[in-house]
Amino acid sequence: MKFQPPKGTRDFLPEEMIRREFVINKIKKVFVNYGFDPLETPIFESWKTLTAKCGEDIKQQIFKFKDKANRGLGLRFDLTVGMARVIANNPQLPKPFKRYFIAPAWRYEEITAGRKREFYQGDVDIVGTESMEAEAECIACSVDCLRSLGFEEFQIVINNRKILDGLLKLADIPSEKNLDVFRVVDKLKKIGKEGVEKELEKIGLDGKQVEKLLNLVTIKGKPEEIGEKGRKLLKGIRVAEEGIKELDEIFETGKLYGFSDFLVIDFSLSRGLDYYTGPIFEITVKTKRQIGSVAGGGRYDNLIELLGGRPTPATGISLGIERIIEIMKDEKMLVLPKTKVKVFVASVNEKVKNEVIKIMQDLRGQGISCQADLMDRSLTKQLEFADSLGIPFCLIVGEKELEEKKFKLKDMEKKTEKELKLEEVIELLKKL
Amino acid sequence: MKFQPPKGTRDFLPEEMIRREFVINKIKKVFVNYGFDPLETPIFESWKTLTAKCGEDIKQQIFKFKDKANRGLGLRFDLTVGMARVIANNPQLPKPFKRYFIAPAWRYEEITAGRKREFYQGDVDIVGTESMEAEAECIACSVDCLRSLGFEEFQIVINNRKILDGLLKLADIPSEKNLDVFRVVDKLKKIGKEGVEKELEKIGLDGKQVEKLLNLVTIKGKPEEIGEKGRKLLKGIRVAEEGIKELDEIFETGKLYGFSDFLVIDFSLSRGLDYYTGPIFEITVKTKRQIGSVAGGGRYDNLIELLGGRPTPATGISLGIERIIEIMKDEKMLVLPKTKVKVFVASVNEKVKNEVIKIMQDLRGQGISCQADLMDRSLTKQLEFADSLGIPFCLIVGEKELEEKKFKLKDMEKKTEKELKLEEVIELLKKL
Repeated sequence: MKFQPPKGTRDFLPEEMIRREFVINKIKKVFVNYGFDPLETPIFESWKTLTAKCGEDIKQQIFKFKDKANRGLGLRFDLTVGMARVIANNPQLPKPFKRYFIAPAWRYEEITAGRKREFYQGDVDIVGTESMEAEAECIACSVDCLRSLGFEEFQIVINNRKILDGLLKLADIPSEKNLDVFRVVDKLKKIGKEGVEKELEKIGLDGKQVEKLLNLVTIKGKPEEIGEKGRKLLKGIRVAEEGIKELDEIFETGKLYGFSDFLVIDFSLSRGLDYYTGPIFEITVKTKRQIGSVAGGGRYDNLIELLGGRPTPATGISLGIERIIEIMKDEKMLVLPKTKVKVFVASVNEKVKNEVIKIMQDLRGQGISCQADLMDRSLTKQLEFADSLGIPFCLIVGEKELEEKKFKLKDMEKKTEKELKLEEVIELLKKL
Repeated sequence: MKFQPPKGTRDFLPEEMIRREFVINKIKKVFVNYGFDPLETPIFESWKTLTAKCGEDIKQQIFKFKDKANRGLGLRFDLTVGMARVIANNPQLPKPFKRYFIAPAWRYEEITAGRKREFYQGDVDIVGTESMEAEAECIACSVDCLRSLGFEEFQIVINNRKILDGLLKLADIPSEKNLDVFRVVDKLKKIGKEGVEKELEKIGLDGKQVEKLLNLVTIKGKPEEIGEKGRKLLKGIRVAEEGIKELDEIFETGKLYGFSDFLVIDFSLSRGLDYYTGPIFEITVKTKRQIGSVAGGGRYDNLIELLGGRPTPATGISLGIERIIEIMKDEKMLVLPKTKVKVFVASVNEKVKNEVIKIMQDLRGQGISCQADLMDRSLTKQLEFADSLGIPFCLIVGEKELEEKKFKLKDMEKKTEKELKLEEVIELLKKL
């Protein structure tokens, strides 16, 4: 009988956790520097909250359950919906409200190498302003997160639901079909042009509409090129003109933040969630071996009102922590110690065990992580054990050492050792 | 239509999150100092894993659900079971294995002021050694966590499932009833002596057994007193003698760690979970206004084998993060800023907005959390907004200031201001 982690979930052993914590801490630091404050919501929400504006595809992916009082619940599929509900319930919060949250979400999806059913996201959101400076700040913050992790080349693909509205109008598609069409167009990269054609026909578009639409949504390029083209194309469609103006503003503010050179306008970008209403964006990193989308987000001006709040514009971005870690591992960007323990305090024999505990308490009081023998093992076995954990130093404590107040500190990797007083050991290890 | 957080869960706004992060970070630091490494498991487990040895009461409290492939799942009710499963599945891990995990768990319980259905715990576990030094280390680590948070007076209530086995034997209770009896005795403080009597009768004990048992389990006192009494009482019952010896060893090692003076032996302590097999313990803090149990744990030598692993002794302790925070708030031990933002960079007018972004990027590059206006507000409104968030400083940026390269830094609490160069501002704010 085997007890496995549930399908789509993973256990994280210390070596992996240390990598994850490294990535999460770096991201968190940048989030805080950008003036975001923490806000946390429960891992599950009422079914009503979750499905208020998620769209059918996501709805199918929610882990659904009921509590004992028969309340319909589901595990959150993202970190946005819970936050929007909090904003709706707390109109007293000063606006704009900037929050971050780094935590797991759950979706019942096909499992691939990179996609699990339990996955961490790192979100920042700015609530209460219509200004495109908010978009620019979210994008700049994400780019800085990625830079702080060691990424250097980016592509920021951007579009606007308002432009998409205009394109659908140009393709003579009735606007009540828009959300369905967006969800299909979003799959262009995944299922290709033919796949999209088929799905568009399934939702009731005729051949002409499909052809027109596909010609339009495959327009893509640098803002300098596409800006003019789009402006001409969408001239007179007011909502789309507004959408283009918004992208212009992001482009201009992006220059100050230094990310405008990475911007690419892609009219096929639509993102899978129904709640987006304005600019939408995805960030891709380019590394030696691979290209991957590691962040995505957009404006959702109606969601808070839909969840019972006052009309409140909002925008945000979500970093895909799992994807980032995966790419960093592949690119050898995450070479870290296997353990947080800095020193193993080894006892030469039974008699010194009490003194070992006292020494450990001194080290711990100075913020130095340490372990000692808990198995009555020989000195050799203790050193082997410390080595197997990847602990970088061993401090040897025997009766002679205690008497002379000098201890051997073994560097386990360099295979060197020094004779030091305890104060010197502490000084040296504190610097690590 | 109101969208509330699900019953038994809460949202944590920034002010509260800052308190929670403060507590969690302090605890994590001590965990790491004690040589524990991080290990994380999914929030849900298979029903089989969760219920392998939890006992009927807990089983009733699990949030139960099925995935789309009809697999029986449940939200974890503690952090121990998942870890034990990981150990079972990863026999390659060097032993003793020391891990920590600070995360939420879920139980469908009666909701009270202090008890919610979603609650954080902070666990340390030592796996792979039978030595009571492991218990001593877990207890010492918890006491140090509490000290690092500002608590000064503790009581460590301790007992041993092996002693309880002996007491039940003395009360002529057949051993197959032991787990049921433990679960009832555990409620002594909650439902009182009469309540326990009734429940014991319900599970089939006769009046004589109940009387004997209640006389025995109400023995309580300092180890110096109870040790001898217990030894005499349980003489000849081998398992119980072993139990007493184990407590002796914890008491002796506890002297080195400095916690033995806090130890109280209480034969009624039994803890609600079925998986305990040896010493069990609870830590209580005494503050001016209240006394509360804030940590509990014990030895569970069979759990890993039950989950398909090799026979592996293990012990651990769990800090009740929610209870700790609640007590600290009541005792005014958590007086912290309302925001992580250090400075609001205010713009005197529209024209300087670009320069404000550049200044912010300088500050952020130096690790200084900052915000600026995103709403085209007047300077007065900007300062009011910064004040409403509790941001401690405002930096005033106007054309004159940019020209002279000197900026007013307003201390929002002291209502003072200084004229400083940007480097001086950075230097001052970095020290905060």
